[in-house]
Amino acid sequence: MKKLEIFDSTLRDGAQGEGISFSLEDKLSIIKCLDELGIDYIEAGSPSFNPKNSEFFNAVKNIKFEHSILVAFGSTRRKGISAKDDSGIKALIESGAKVACIFGKSSELHVKEILGTDEQENLEMISDSIITLKEHGMRVFFDAEHFFDGYKLNPQFSINTLKAAANAGAECISLCDTNGGCFPDEIFNITKIVVDTFPNIKIGIHCHDDGGMAISNSIMAVKAGAVHVQGTYLGYGERCGNANLSSIIPNLQLKLGYSCIPDYCMSNLTHAAHAISEISNIRLKSSTPYVGKSAFAHKAGTHADGVLKNSVSFEHINPQAVGNERRILMSDQAGRTAILRKISKIIPDISKDSPETGIILNALKQKELEGYQFEGADGSFELLVRKQLGMYLPFFELVSYKILDEEPSETSHSATATIKIRVGSRLQITAAEGDGPVNALDLALREALGIFYPTLASVKLIDYKVRVMDSGNATAAKVRVLITSSDNKSTWTTVGAGEDVIKASWIALVDSLEYKLIKNR
Amino acid sequence: MKKLEIFDSTLRDGAQGEGISFSLEDKLSIIKCLDELGIDYIEAGSPSFNPKNSEFFNAVKNIKFEHSILVAFGSTRRKGISAKDDSGIKALIESGAKVACIFGKSSELHVKEILGTDEQENLEMISDSIITLKEHGMRVFFDAEHFFDGYKLNPQFSINTLKAAANAGAECISLCDTNGGCFPDEIFNITKIVVDTFPNIKIGIHCHDDGGMAISNSIMAVKAGAVHVQGTYLGYGERCGNANLSSIIPNLQLKLGYSCIPDYCMSNLTHAAHAISEISNIRLKSSTPYVGKSAFAHKAGTHADGVLKNSVSFEHINPQAVGNERRILMSDQAGRTAILRKISKIIPDISKDSPETGIILNALKQKELEGYQFEGADGSFELLVRKQLGMYLPFFELVSYKILDEEPSETSHSATATIKIRVGSRLQITAAEGDGPVNALDLALREALGIFYPTLASVKLIDYKVRVMDSGNATAAKVRVLITSSDNKSTWTTVGAGEDVIKASWIALVDSLEYKLIKNR
Repeated sequence: MKKLEIFDSTLRDGAQGEGISFSLEDKLSIIKCLDELGIDYIEAGSPSFNPKNSEFFNAVKNIKFEHSILVAFGSTRRKGISAKDDSGIKALIESGAKVACIFGKSSELHVKEILGTDEQENLEMISDSIITLKEHGMRVFFDAEHFFDGYKLNPQFSINTLKAAANAGAECISLCDTNGGCFPDEIFNITKIVVDTFPNIKIGIHCHDDGGMAISNSIMAVKAGAVHVQGTYLGYGERCGNANLSSIIPNLQLKLGYSCIPDYCMSNLTHAAHAISEISNIRLKSSTPYVGKSAFAHKAGTHADGVLKNSVSFEHINPQAVGNERRILMSDQAGRTAILRKISKIIPDISKDSPETGIILNALKQKELEGYQFEGADGSFELLVRKQLGMYLPFFELVSYKILDEEPSETSHSATATIKIRVGSRLQITAAEGDGPVNALDLALREALGIFYPTLASVKLIDYKVRVMDSGNATAAKVRVLITSSDNKSTWTTVGAGEDVIKASWIALVDSLEYKLIKNR
Repeated sequence: MKKLEIFDSTLRDGAQGEGISFSLEDKLSIIKCLDELGIDYIEAGSPSFNPKNSEFFNAVKNIKFEHSILVAFGSTRRKGISAKDDSGIKALIESGAKVACIFGKSSELHVKEILGTDEQENLEMISDSIITLKEHGMRVFFDAEHFFDGYKLNPQFSINTLKAAANAGAECISLCDTNGGCFPDEIFNITKIVVDTFPNIKIGIHCHDDGGMAISNSIMAVKAGAVHVQGTYLGYGERCGNANLSSIIPNLQLKLGYSCIPDYCMSNLTHAAHAISEISNIRLKSSTPYVGKSAFAHKAGTHADGVLKNSVSFEHINPQAVGNERRILMSDQAGRTAILRKISKIIPDISKDSPETGIILNALKQKELEGYQFEGADGSFELLVRKQLGMYLPFFELVSYKILDEEPSETSHSATATIKIRVGSRLQITAAEGDGPVNALDLALREALGIFYPTLASVKLIDYKVRVMDSGNATAAKVRVLITSSDNKSTWTTVGAGEDVIKASWIALVDSLEYKLIKNR
């Protein structure tokens, strides 16, 4: 199997997508997902762009990667100065990343009209930048911006920019369909010419999806000899997005015999898609090829029957190959093995046919209908298993809570929560003010429980996420709340769901504290 | 320009998509959209399939079409009986449609394993069915199910099924990639062979998107000589959906010189997409090529600057050609020029150096520090501009709101909101119960304002999103709320931010209603 390099730009080009705004924590979580997936290169943004990104490059220095190599993104130097004086080039060198990916202009139109300079200066910008980065020990990838559109206008002009990059020592040159409007046969033909012209350098492909053809275009480039594929894992990116790696990888690896990621990572494709979409707070379209919830869902009678007679009859691949599952209306065999694996971490001697397995599966299915999702909510999953199997004694009982939120408010806090709990025979009432209803409830609950369980003082909530499901129902939509907690030794996530954001938060909050108490019991 | 036939199956294959369920009214509305768009054929479902569909075929008999021809869908007769005795064939004849599209098996695997018969019987099923329908005066299209997969297994077997259809008098034969797993070059090569083998019959293409390549595959078939393209307007369909016509049509018509729909209908593509997604109650993914809200949205500073210098620099087509628009997204990355451009839509004679520009930029920056983000929140952006420049008179004044959320709750609703507003000299107090605090507040506000502004009854909230920022602050984290509203004519998005999810929702809610009132003033 021929190995291809996979280059993910979720954190850079993906961050240009409308509605996407990654926090530092989000970025580190996404890096972890991509590294576990065996992605070769993770483009992490531009170190010069703003102080937030520099903070990120400092944080990322301490991460030990299993597979991936971090790439810092930038551009060729500005015109009229030398690369060693260019603040962007300097930031790349100081970023600590071993690989720099810089883009440069490769279309005559762009050099003349957008950059406002001539061919000679543009070629110097390319070589000067690459040479300077290499002198500082960096490996350099060159992204030839607007290459295909430029080639169609003036082939020699565009090829000359690649020559400048190659002569300056770029390790890989990626051809970009920056505007995303090319067709698969064009991409194939032009890539083939480039591959034949530059037999001694890695040629990459970087597509955008403005014509809805980025996946095909990337694959046709590989068929023409490209050995390096750039995209974003879920196709995030400006306008219509970048080439979707979660489709490209299985297309190439399961059907065309290329190796993109380690084989044992293939069944992690679906899980990674769900995790990254959750972190990004962008709903994963259920019809997404390979990894979407509906990707192997059969509704039509004949198709559903056919697929049961012979799965290849209505499925292009075996869904398990990408960690997804076939869904037939009313079928309940979904993911039994996968869930079993998780349960056996809590109860080691459970088997597929244990009655306990059935009980837990039913409870899970019911909870999922209510809007819960346990992928990633390990704390709540363990509590659910224990509760179903009678392996759980409650630590307290909620008698009631009341929350008042008002505008204008009497104090600087807009919300007040009153909470009444029972521990053993003792009733405890507390109240707290907070920045919003959930914060008030959180503070009141901790105060009440802290009296009985002082160990809870070490629990810090480090992340709080709200996700609106079925958002078409607007303000009556169901929400899912995810809370991540830490006691400095370990970290766990819990989930709550419902139509009331306060109640959903309450459920996740209680789970987060009970999980800590279970661990200590 | 070479005319291609466009065949939409939203009502048939599209209805197989998960989460889709069309009422009779929905179907009639979608037919209207497609007819106005100049689509040649509308496949409307199978008349035999269920009583609902028969009711539909009766209702549709009275419609006068401007462009489209209605197609009834069915299959070849069952094995072992004659076509004239087959209930499905009879239902097609009785449907009143002038065109029947029937699918038949064209893969050896499917004939033997799924149908459980031999080649000879399968060929007879095809010709018998077509001949019978034609004897009753119908035009017949034949869909060769699993053609490409079948051809790859046994080319002659698959070609023979096409011969049977051609000899029986089918007007058009569509080659189906039923499992959606083929690659563009395969589709091109095999389609080319078929086109060359059958020079006197129209060859069509019918693709599914399981590999994410249905758009490319359809286009490559056209490049190989197919003259009839089947798909669904927004790509709805089983599993990963069918080929998306809203991308295929502009790709073919604006870039490759084919005529798919009348030229004057092209600028209706975006409107039709929004209408059909509304009717289907499936949110249109904003990154959808050509017709999505983000399809021409520019965020990065350099791209936004470039596109303003020369629009072809970062746009593959002119957005107006498909009735869409360029959007420059507000963010700290976007430059002064970009924001100016948006302001000038509201105040035409503003310049880069006007004092107003500085005022608005400062206000924007301040709001962004508070957690607002105006990219995509066009409604709130316009309100902010108007407020900053004194071009805004408030419609009402909030005196106070109070929200009570409790557990356990007395009713099935967990939250109650009381709201007091003033309009002119009149005070209005209303209360409402809701599924959670935001829903209660929404209902109470609409009730109070509706008394003064009945036009607000037409405003529907169609999307509600909550995003937790700086989520490391856990339950005290800032949240940003985005609300998208529609009055069936247009759609706008508003934003609110703060530490209290209720207050942030309130801000976005008020903006959404005030924006509507401004538009009507």
